[in-house]
Amino acid sequence: MENTYCIIMAGGVGSRFWPMSTSKKPKQFLDILGVGSTLLQQTYERFESICLPQNIFIVTNIDYKTIIEEQLPQLNPTHILVEPLRRNTAPCLAYATNKIHKLNKNAVTIVAPSDHLILNQDAFKKAIKSCVIKAKEDNCLVTIGIKPTNPDTGYGYIQFVNSTAVEQDKNMYKVKTFTEKPTLEIAQQFIDSGDFLWNSGIFIWTTKGFLNALELYDEPLATRFKAGEKIYGTDKEAEFLTKAYTDSKNISIDYSLLEKANNVYVRSSVVGWSDLGTFGSLHAHIKQDKFQNALIGKNIVQYDCNNCLVNVPNEKLVVMQGLNDYIVVESKGVLLICKKQDEQLIRNFVNDVKVHKGEQFI
Amino acid sequence: MENTYCIIMAGGVGSRFWPMSTSKKPKQFLDILGVGSTLLQQTYERFESICLPQNIFIVTNIDYKTIIEEQLPQLNPTHILVEPLRRNTAPCLAYATNKIHKLNKNAVTIVAPSDHLILNQDAFKKAIKSCVIKAKEDNCLVTIGIKPTNPDTGYGYIQFVNSTAVEQDKNMYKVKTFTEKPTLEIAQQFIDSGDFLWNSGIFIWTTKGFLNALELYDEPLATRFKAGEKIYGTDKEAEFLTKAYTDSKNISIDYSLLEKANNVYVRSSVVGWSDLGTFGSLHAHIKQDKFQNALIGKNIVQYDCNNCLVNVPNEKLVVMQGLNDYIVVESKGVLLICKKQDEQLIRNFVNDVKVHKGEQFI
Repeated sequence: MENTYCIIMAGGVGSRFWPMSTSKKPKQFLDILGVGSTLLQQTYERFESICLPQNIFIVTNIDYKTIIEEQLPQLNPTHILVEPLRRNTAPCLAYATNKIHKLNKNAVTIVAPSDHLILNQDAFKKAIKSCVIKAKEDNCLVTIGIKPTNPDTGYGYIQFVNSTAVEQDKNMYKVKTFTEKPTLEIAQQFIDSGDFLWNSGIFIWTTKGFLNALELYDEPLATRFKAGEKIYGTDKEAEFLTKAYTDSKNISIDYSLLEKANNVYVRSSVVGWSDLGTFGSLHAHIKQDKFQNALIGKNIVQYDCNNCLVNVPNEKLVVMQGLNDYIVVESKGVLLICKKQDEQLIRNFVNDVKVHKGEQFI
Repeated sequence: MENTYCIIMAGGVGSRFWPMSTSKKPKQFLDILGVGSTLLQQTYERFESICLPQNIFIVTNIDYKTIIEEQLPQLNPTHILVEPLRRNTAPCLAYATNKIHKLNKNAVTIVAPSDHLILNQDAFKKAIKSCVIKAKEDNCLVTIGIKPTNPDTGYGYIQFVNSTAVEQDKNMYKVKTFTEKPTLEIAQQFIDSGDFLWNSGIFIWTTKGFLNALELYDEPLATRFKAGEKIYGTDKEAEFLTKAYTDSKNISIDYSLLEKANNVYVRSSVVGWSDLGTFGSLHAHIKQDKFQNALIGKNIVQYDCNNCLVNVPNEKLVVMQGLNDYIVVESKGVLLICKKQDEQLIRNFVNDVKVHKGEQFI
């Protein structure tokens, strides 16, 4: 247990939930489900029963350090690893893993996004436990794969080799390929074949196994962050990082490492997972009234509305009538009303607003 | 000219434009058309070119005295006649006419609501002028009737006797009947008959003529407010009014007097009038974009919206997509989204909000 660490990645900024989520306060820092705690807080709590609290680290962008300190006052502030620039997950994990490896050469780390939903904590713990065993045993790279329920085109897919289920866990497979978001037709073929899982973005590996693999498949990145070994934890760390991040490409760990490595395993899991990546997926996970309206806000009065997703401040009185399948979101002086089926347009709206109305709204 | 007075009635409170209009700040005190001045201010300006400014009086409820002082700083504060209670137009005009009659026994008064639109000021002036002549000549009661353009069921109708057009103004007729808001079928019959006009609620009479008629047709009311003759303008006026209003029935001047009197005339007029009584009528009078959206607010961005009426504070950023024929109104922390065709439901919404959320929202 004392060798198990968790790295929560909380540096992302998305525009899909605008104006609820903004660049100043992205999704992971919001109580987006209306349950009284933010996604980051939920993620932290989830790992408190998996790791020792003192083994939990959060990697984030400098902009969000204060928010994290506010939302997780129990966290040792030195466990907030601050990235000076946004360079996607590969530099992020090269940095965080080296930091932890310096602390404990026998560490096994669980890497997880900060803004996902996991409904079945027991099944999740069981899956993680199995992955930790596998990672320690082989120093291999293990991912959590989610058993798909539909040909969702919003997720990445992991193909596994069916015959290689390992003995102690029949849901643990060797990975064959990673595929980015597919078309609907291809997604359907994936589902039909039975040997594809959704890529949850949750990874388990020993620091040793990860650093070895990185050295093999992305040597410059591995070297760049290994060079900080003596600097991590000193007052030169920030300066070192600025240079290291500036020199690094913007690249995901999937692309930089996982797609290339030949010792990647996936644990097929049914854990009630969602990346909460769209208003649609959000809607499904919020308590609904009998008209399938998911209403977050304490003063929402609806007449003849169906299947709407509403998220407004508690003090706001909203009276809405005759809306079907709409998103209504208000946050910090910005109101969005949009058909749910057209939510992919929100990115465009955000761009337009940025250009025509100013960055302060984004 | 010095005998011509104007009484602007600004005490009404309506719920049809909620949440734009609230009981604290009803429609007449709002820049509901987004033109930079409130309906009260527009009404005042309209009469400045008809009366001497020192002959303009405003009757209102005590609640609105401060708003009127703010919106019309040029008005002598003693010209705001304050009603202690809401008792509809009959007590209101009994009071105001007695006040003016005390000042000038030869006064002719133009009575007008504070929240209507009149687009053709020249035609309106001409109509008023003719009514003033008629009222002075006969000490009769004259109303402005609007030539109807459609069988609107939201208006009252005035039937005139076609053969009695008076000599000096062929649009001046004797009134036969007043009818409250009719059904569509009846309204259509009215239009077809050609001898019905819309009741604008604008009246012209000499104070003498009005007080004589009131004595004939509503003697208790006439006596009650005549009794204040020596008290008006003294420090006992407020006390007197509280009793007089408490003793008075809630009754309109149409019902109390005009429907009974036999010396009522109507001047058929085409003056670009609207009582702005519905969001629909409001929509028609606001500048529209090429998609027939009437957008009041400086930061409204619309995609794929048609025929919507939006009224939000300037500082509010609204991004709306995929709405057709909707009303979107935000005011003081309250947001209303409603199908335009269902706007008559807004009164119900207001009642529900009052009961379930509290009077502070109304």
